[in-house]
Amino acid sequence: MSSGDKQQQLTSVDECLEKHLPPAELAEVKRILYGRDVPRITLPQSALDAAQEGSFEIKAFKFDAAKEDITTPRVVRVGLVQNKIVLPTTAPVQQQRDALLARCATIARAAAMAGVNVLCLQEAWNMPFAFCTREKLPWCEFAEPAEDGPTTQFIQKIAREHNMVIISPILERDTNHGDVLWNTAVVVSNTGRVIGKSRKNHIPRVGDFNESTYYESGNTGHPVFSTQFGKLAVNICYGRHHPQNWMMYGINGAEIVFNPSATLDGLSEPLWGVEARNAAIANSYFTCAINRVGTEHYPRPFTSADGQPAHHDLGHFYGSSYVTAPDGSRTPGLSRTSDGLLVVEMDLNLCRQIKDKWGFRMTQRLELYGPLLSAAARPDFKPQIISDSFTD
Amino acid sequence: MSSGDKQQQLTSVDECLEKHLPPAELAEVKRILYGRDVPRITLPQSALDAAQEGSFEIKAFKFDAAKEDITTPRVVRVGLVQNKIVLPTTAPVQQQRDALLARCATIARAAAMAGVNVLCLQEAWNMPFAFCTREKLPWCEFAEPAEDGPTTQFIQKIAREHNMVIISPILERDTNHGDVLWNTAVVVSNTGRVIGKSRKNHIPRVGDFNESTYYESGNTGHPVFSTQFGKLAVNICYGRHHPQNWMMYGINGAEIVFNPSATLDGLSEPLWGVEARNAAIANSYFTCAINRVGTEHYPRPFTSADGQPAHHDLGHFYGSSYVTAPDGSRTPGLSRTSDGLLVVEMDLNLCRQIKDKWGFRMTQRLELYGPLLSAAARPDFKPQIISDSFTD
Repeated sequence: MSSGDKQQQLTSVDECLEKHLPPAELAEVKRILYGRDVPRITLPQSALDAAQEGSFEIKAFKFDAAKEDITTPRVVRVGLVQNKIVLPTTAPVQQQRDALLARCATIARAAAMAGVNVLCLQEAWNMPFAFCTREKLPWCEFAEPAEDGPTTQFIQKIAREHNMVIISPILERDTNHGDVLWNTAVVVSNTGRVIGKSRKNHIPRVGDFNESTYYESGNTGHPVFSTQFGKLAVNICYGRHHPQNWMMYGINGAEIVFNPSATLDGLSEPLWGVEARNAAIANSYFTCAINRVGTEHYPRPFTSADGQPAHHDLGHFYGSSYVTAPDGSRTPGLSRTSDGLLVVEMDLNLCRQIKDKWGFRMTQRLELYGPLLSAAARPDFKPQIISDSFTD
Repeated sequence: MSSGDKQQQLTSVDECLEKHLPPAELAEVKRILYGRDVPRITLPQSALDAAQEGSFEIKAFKFDAAKEDITTPRVVRVGLVQNKIVLPTTAPVQQQRDALLARCATIARAAAMAGVNVLCLQEAWNMPFAFCTREKLPWCEFAEPAEDGPTTQFIQKIAREHNMVIISPILERDTNHGDVLWNTAVVVSNTGRVIGKSRKNHIPRVGDFNESTYYESGNTGHPVFSTQFGKLAVNICYGRHHPQNWMMYGINGAEIVFNPSATLDGLSEPLWGVEARNAAIANSYFTCAINRVGTEHYPRPFTSADGQPAHHDLGHFYGSSYVTAPDGSRTPGLSRTSDGLLVVEMDLNLCRQIKDKWGFRMTQRLELYGPLLSAAARPDFKPQIISDSFTD
């Protein structure tokens, strides 16, 4: 058991506040912490039944926008999936993957019943997050070509079946470029067509997240995928720590940016509610933060560069997937401890309305910052420092 | 009375949680929402007495860093001041200013007793935040030269007296460049010398914050002031909504970035705990978010472009000043309703230690983003959009 699982895990901050705060104070605390009230929406009984039968949480919320004279509402429903691995990491690779594909199919079916138009899975969703081990086999066997690997073919089938755009983050094997690996999100149209892919732009070397052992910084830029259900982008995991990364998806026109992640309670949890939310505010788009859940045990021990004895798990992935609107208001999170599907309806007109209100894009001064960042990247860069003559 | 003051204001989210949550759940909720525990520190009785006598809140906290073999701790204490205006906005200009200067002197004296090395005042601290009126007189009379105006001379005196660096954000009258106005922070050394100034880089036009009526975007870049007590920078108010602005202070080497602000509960409060905190995380430095407090009434009515009747006040400034460390942990906030001084001790070594741990600066890829932002600023910019062929 990981340290995270030895103790009783808190299921949800939101439930804890709702249980203990008096109603008037709860409303004010939620306003200050979370923004305007985000109402729940009622889902069809079939979706609720499917969730209960499949043993995963399902929650649904709605962000509306102001009515306009000329522009009609552009309402879409997104689904965020968080899940544990299904089989032990010691099972044969293909069985592990097949079990996760079946789990995904179950949740996607409930999402379809809930009217979801765009479904996003968690980072490297068809495998355990084995990069902590720094071992190459068997984990690299989970890698596959983005365009036509078995996982992509599977996703194409269910995307077409349910008329949903699906974002499928996997470990990519780039057979056209020397078989190298990438951390890649494949974006599949509701027609079943692969629209394109987006690679993870910033790679961690923090704690056990030594992913630079496996793959390099992405080279696909900051693509925005124009779909029937809005302009979508994918900022994978550690890229959420980089505001300039979020910013480029916004500059390229994204209305919804998904952040499929895999991160631990002992490492990043106090940052979790801050970063994707700040990105939604700064860029006037919706952000969807997705984290896997549970603890994954490995057959061979590894160390964590923290002086502690070698061990067999990373710790506890805390779930807590949530959505933030361009006005900074956010939904409650999914559970910290169990599989779940978060369904969020949103009117994409809110992005433009908030740009008009707050003016962050208008006041961005990109013509100032482009040359500044370029200068700062040069080896001979001189920072703008003004010294107090008595101290320097 | 403003709408904000008609109802009973919640004094503090932190106090509300502490009052109602059971201890074990409180600890876990605070960990998830605020990060690692930030211990209180004990202040000399003289400082506490001065606060009580002066009718302002005083709170003190401490962020430590890991001990290192070679590098000794670099411990500094900062003080954040939030306060109401003292006299009505109908009093003569000089009397209003003198009353605020006296209030500042009282709080600065307590800060000195509390061992503060660097004190930062709120935005346009020596005047009411009158830009909502869009009137030029009498409010422009509060403007003065940054280098040697009466407020700067006053600050020089108390900086020398208390051996404190003081950051003094004022409305600047630039007599060397056609008498134009700027929103400017003057940085005064603990020796009393004016080290330099930093102008507000991004100007709001949201709600009643129509400050573009009065002054333009700053032209002083992103200066970092190297002082006896660390490398300091000032990101004024609306600049906190712009991650690229925060980033440049970090690139120039800032260890502490102050964000003196004036903002309202009906407008920005759910963003308040997110933006300065995200900046501390993304840039591995300390951020100090300061907001004024109270409601300011004006003699002549103005409208707010929200369809509501003309009125005489902006609403409620919610205080809630707080400090975030590079690891994302934050102090509780000062009160939402009263004057206050927040004293925070910090070991500046934590900035470098967190850079080494998380690697955000190492993985920043500035060489990628400089050209991207420059391209995006050009009128003929083409966003990176990949269209689903069925929809475009």
